[in-house]
Amino acid sequence: MIDDPRALLEKLFAAAIDAALPSARVPPHLPPPPKGRTIVIGAGKASAAMARAVEDHWPGDLEGLVVTRYGHAVPCRRIEIVEASHPVPDEAGLRAAERVLDLADGAGEDDLVLCLISGGGSSLMPLPSPGLSLEDKQAVNRALLKSGATIDEMNCVRKHLSAIKGGWLAAAAAPARMVTLLISDVPGDDPDVIASGPTVPDPTSFADARTILKKYAVDLPVAVRDHLDRAERETPKPGDPIFAKSEIRMIATPQSALEAAAALAGSMGVEAHILSDRIEGESRDVGLVLAALARQVADRDQPFAAPCALLSGGETTVTVRGDGRGGRNVEFLLSLAIALEGHGRVWALAGDTDGIDGMEDNAGAITGPDSLSRGATKGLIAKDRLEQNDGYGFFAALGDLVTTGPTLTNVNDFRAILVLPRSP
Amino acid sequence: MIDDPRALLEKLFAAAIDAALPSARVPPHLPPPPKGRTIVIGAGKASAAMARAVEDHWPGDLEGLVVTRYGHAVPCRRIEIVEASHPVPDEAGLRAAERVLDLADGAGEDDLVLCLISGGGSSLMPLPSPGLSLEDKQAVNRALLKSGATIDEMNCVRKHLSAIKGGWLAAAAAPARMVTLLISDVPGDDPDVIASGPTVPDPTSFADARTILKKYAVDLPVAVRDHLDRAERETPKPGDPIFAKSEIRMIATPQSALEAAAALAGSMGVEAHILSDRIEGESRDVGLVLAALARQVADRDQPFAAPCALLSGGETTVTVRGDGRGGRNVEFLLSLAIALEGHGRVWALAGDTDGIDGMEDNAGAITGPDSLSRGATKGLIAKDRLEQNDGYGFFAALGDLVTTGPTLTNVNDFRAILVLPRSP
Repeated sequence: MIDDPRALLEKLFAAAIDAALPSARVPPHLPPPPKGRTIVIGAGKASAAMARAVEDHWPGDLEGLVVTRYGHAVPCRRIEIVEASHPVPDEAGLRAAERVLDLADGAGEDDLVLCLISGGGSSLMPLPSPGLSLEDKQAVNRALLKSGATIDEMNCVRKHLSAIKGGWLAAAAAPARMVTLLISDVPGDDPDVIASGPTVPDPTSFADARTILKKYAVDLPVAVRDHLDRAERETPKPGDPIFAKSEIRMIATPQSALEAAAALAGSMGVEAHILSDRIEGESRDVGLVLAALARQVADRDQPFAAPCALLSGGETTVTVRGDGRGGRNVEFLLSLAIALEGHGRVWALAGDTDGIDGMEDNAGAITGPDSLSRGATKGLIAKDRLEQNDGYGFFAALGDLVTTGPTLTNVNDFRAILVLPRSP
Repeated sequence: MIDDPRALLEKLFAAAIDAALPSARVPPHLPPPPKGRTIVIGAGKASAAMARAVEDHWPGDLEGLVVTRYGHAVPCRRIEIVEASHPVPDEAGLRAAERVLDLADGAGEDDLVLCLISGGGSSLMPLPSPGLSLEDKQAVNRALLKSGATIDEMNCVRKHLSAIKGGWLAAAAAPARMVTLLISDVPGDDPDVIASGPTVPDPTSFADARTILKKYAVDLPVAVRDHLDRAERETPKPGDPIFAKSEIRMIATPQSALEAAAALAGSMGVEAHILSDRIEGESRDVGLVLAALARQVADRDQPFAAPCALLSGGETTVTVRGDGRGGRNVEFLLSLAIALEGHGRVWALAGDTDGIDGMEDNAGAITGPDSLSRGATKGLIAKDRLEQNDGYGFFAALGDLVTTGPTLTNVNDFRAILVLPRSP
């Protein structure tokens, strides 16, 4: 029996967020203290919260510096928190990156370098190779984004224009022991991709980078071309002894958040099915597809019997057409609600695990069988609101926003569709 | 063991089409011959093929007329086949509709009227209410399509502007016995929606139609406004005795085609899961979502264990951006292939069960682990081809188109994603 679908969905969302919180996920992964010093470094939208979790649980002395996004700082006593710009890097990030690299470089054989990496770390900790400027790197980045290159291809190039990515941070820390704690917000959870892998061996080469840039006919600044042609210092490769004392621990992922929600659902008597931890695509179209799946469950008990919850993660996108308010999660939900046409047994919640859906103050929203009709009584035609990208306006008017405040972590979007059983 | 993924997928597609062919589906649903005459009428893209199936299996005399789309005629000996325009109605369709209504009207108590309806029947058999012109109806149709009205709302209005839809054809046939055979190409398979339900009771009223037009502030031709205000002849309602001898038989649906493919897959040792019979949305985004689901199956055995087949139906759309060739199924596949990044254990087929994907000569195509790389060796960058809506060009160059020729039936798109087992 599901008495309160709304409360159940909110509990699932809370479970997903809890499973990604640094305060919960960092402590069990902390290594034993070293003989020497403990140096904490890192970058990412969750890095300050991760640093705080280290401080709160670390038995001995520590020092260090982490970079986070403007507004994402958390008060720390011993670890310095620096704020910088995301997604476009700035000078604050560059100066912080130099200091992070110096801290790692100063670590000795008996020291421990604890590296805290989460999404956004790449732009928050930019450090161009000697001879290149931030502008050079950004010009290449922009060109690559437009070129049709894959994420792996873009990362290969980025690593060969950086003095910190592609394993260089780990190289600086050697011969100290290094432990990297990672929170993933990327499809596939590849440590090599999260923040462009500053502590991960790089299997790619300068030659690969040149081939990719040639393949997509990317126009290069002269300094970049010279740098790639010189190919002076190849990134550290898998098997390199500098990684002998380096360890990577994935402490939170979109999948682990979904698993936590699924476990909670199960304990409440609702079987949960994880559809995918990496759904991408235009939010309104993702809404149409998941609505079609929910109807199949509700109307035909295929491919799953109702009652059940369909869980998914990933990050959808919104192509802005109108002048409404709201992020990708309310856009998804509004489209889902329209496609479900007030189906009597389907409820859904969608929210960003970082607590902020787009530019508003909500994490997401909830929709149920009467959302369209309640909107209509308030003069809100759901289709019109979707056309205006006004998911926020629609769900705010219904009082159906879900608000958590910033969670200071991020494992991307969380979606749960609850299909109730047929009435007996 | 799946020796030949390509052959397996083609067999599943063939099974789906076979399950929708009039030659297979009409005979088991034919009623016993009547004491009196047998009159065959109907409209739709499959109606000529359905008429032919009746002729081939009917034990006694018959006569009649069915309307199909230009180019969809099939030689018949006793039933007259008329071709008309779809999707924009023309005079040929209007004259045919008058004759169809007359034939039904002439049927007596001992006669049987066999009505063959399939997708497209609404525009192929247009008959405005007395006093209205085809242009009047089309003006209202266009305005409704732009208004944001739901399909049910549009159908309510259409039925109240028609002399044949909304049950009027059944009314004309009474007191003869009437059997309607339906092939569905609409989400939900509502007989009331397929071809706007010419033989189905209409629960809606003139007042409903006026409310809908007011709600969306639809600008009406004067003749239409007068007609709706006069409200002279209300459509026949559920429970009306004229439906006492009228029977509806759904002989093929997207779901039945998917079930047939699933059964074949099962018999070949591959468990099939029907995700939905009604997936809609932009083809490339549907490709992204189904790729994310396929990866979850392949990489995590969630929500299904591999090996398995993920089947779905429905009708996606393509927003034309480039100048390439191809319909929605190759567009879907190209996007799917890009998102799968050459995943080694995922194959897929997508095709239109009518045998024509868009404007080309193929029904669909097949993609596998090496599609992107084989494309690249031919100088075809998949992302570029997708940007140009050139799915046909891409898969044609690889020799991976699936060609069936026109099948003369239509239960919409068929998609099968095959996830192979991990190598032992």
